[in-house]
Amino acid sequence: METLRRVSEIRRFVAASRAQSATIGFVPTMGALHAGHLALVQAARAQCRRVIVSIFVNPTQFGPNEDLAAYPRDEAGDARKLREAGADVLYMPDVSEMYGEGFSTSVRVKDLSQGLCGDFRPVHFEGVATVVTKLLLQVFPDAAFFGEKDYQQLQIIKRLVCDLNIPVRIESVPTLRESDGLALSSRNLYLSPEERTIAPSLYRILKSATDDIRGGQAIAARAERAITELRAAGFAKIDYLEVRDAQTLEPITKLSRPARILAAAWLGRTRLIDNLAIEVP
Amino acid sequence: METLRRVSEIRRFVAASRAQSATIGFVPTMGALHAGHLALVQAARAQCRRVIVSIFVNPTQFGPNEDLAAYPRDEAGDARKLREAGADVLYMPDVSEMYGEGFSTSVRVKDLSQGLCGDFRPVHFEGVATVVTKLLLQVFPDAAFFGEKDYQQLQIIKRLVCDLNIPVRIESVPTLRESDGLALSSRNLYLSPEERTIAPSLYRILKSATDDIRGGQAIAARAERAITELRAAGFAKIDYLEVRDAQTLEPITKLSRPARILAAAWLGRTRLIDNLAIEVP
Repeated sequence: METLRRVSEIRRFVAASRAQSATIGFVPTMGALHAGHLALVQAARAQCRRVIVSIFVNPTQFGPNEDLAAYPRDEAGDARKLREAGADVLYMPDVSEMYGEGFSTSVRVKDLSQGLCGDFRPVHFEGVATVVTKLLLQVFPDAAFFGEKDYQQLQIIKRLVCDLNIPVRIESVPTLRESDGLALSSRNLYLSPEERTIAPSLYRILKSATDDIRGGQAIAARAERAITELRAAGFAKIDYLEVRDAQTLEPITKLSRPARILAAAWLGRTRLIDNLAIEVP
Repeated sequence: METLRRVSEIRRFVAASRAQSATIGFVPTMGALHAGHLALVQAARAQCRRVIVSIFVNPTQFGPNEDLAAYPRDEAGDARKLREAGADVLYMPDVSEMYGEGFSTSVRVKDLSQGLCGDFRPVHFEGVATVVTKLLLQVFPDAAFFGEKDYQQLQIIKRLVCDLNIPVRIESVPTLRESDGLALSSRNLYLSPEERTIAPSLYRILKSATDDIRGGQAIAARAERAITELRAAGFAKIDYLEVRDAQTLEPITKLSRPARILAAAWLGRTRLIDNLAIEVP
């Protein structure tokens, strides 16, 4: 596995691969890799001859009071995991390679960036949309792989790729979970042992609400009850728990199209998110 | 010359051209073509084996009180001119091809979109940046050609192409003028015979200010005097007349780097813009 740090190097690798008619799969990450990321690499390997994984902790998607400085970094461990997973290239641009002097362009996806995490992380999705646009245009893969764990982000990326006519296929991969149901996340590293015992109840509470709503319970009342359950389980603050249209993320009151239940809640200083599909019965 | 209306058709044409190792030049326009546009086509032909010209009157770059409905359209005349100029493809997507259902992404170039025309046309440059990003990603040319007449637009496009890593070369082409100095513009069609006799004084006044500033006159005072001269010549309203850094478009007080004098002024209901280089002597 090669490690490349410049746009020009990535473009050379991609051009050489295309000259051999090799398809390119791309997995953009912020590092601190866990089995969820490796499942994305595996999905990319299954579909494409060459797999590029980027690690870039993007400063513009963190708010001023968020965890940019503390965000976990483990370059050597990440490189080892990617080598074992069969990635061909680790792409690690630095901040000056991504945001040169005078940088001042941003990409925004209006409707989908409002509500849910967008209400609590006001600069986040503009930062994500901009950096993902850049990475896709730097690498130009045939397909790019994103996890369903960041569900709002996934819908935003699908939208912007369609809207801006970026010629790449977006593939989504289901959330990986610990055996107790906790969704894998780099931020799980922040949890104290006690918080770690509480954390899986986020999944359990969402799962139970999902089953009840599929079973016919009223959406608003059942979501309210799930919030109460989260509080009782020990979540100090609940940013949101909502049921939305699975594609447009618009609020819904009836289960007439595929829906998604999504939540963000805090354990101490760690913000956890999770989401589940609610199929129409 | 072929006329294509779908992204998929353009992509097929470009892929077939690339398979023959042909380079692609692209000239995006809003139609109502004049010799200035044809100079862009000529520049594209000089550098590239295949030339694609788009005509799309982009609704999102017009404000609610602007001239979208009245904007001149002449599909048959435009096609004839492009055929004679040697374009290979006329690309004419309709609004629904460009902005499908649920479209909600926008591209913004912060600093360069503020001031000058940005202060008077608040949605304009976001509309321009978004549609140019889309067109470049639809066509994927080797080079795209823009006129210096829309100088602020040109700087914004250079910036966004660099910032978003769009792999295309942006080529600028000097403004074409009538023999009396009036910059060619589709909007010149709006001018009454009397307004048409006043219009060239915009160029003459900018040219004289340029010469005086190169000759050592103070920038602010000379720009002020040029505004007075525009009023005396018969321009009813002057949106701005300013001297800026030629690349960053930041206001300047001294001629220490290449500068640009830019103005927008109204004759009746027609808004004219023009600009000239001020080289460091």
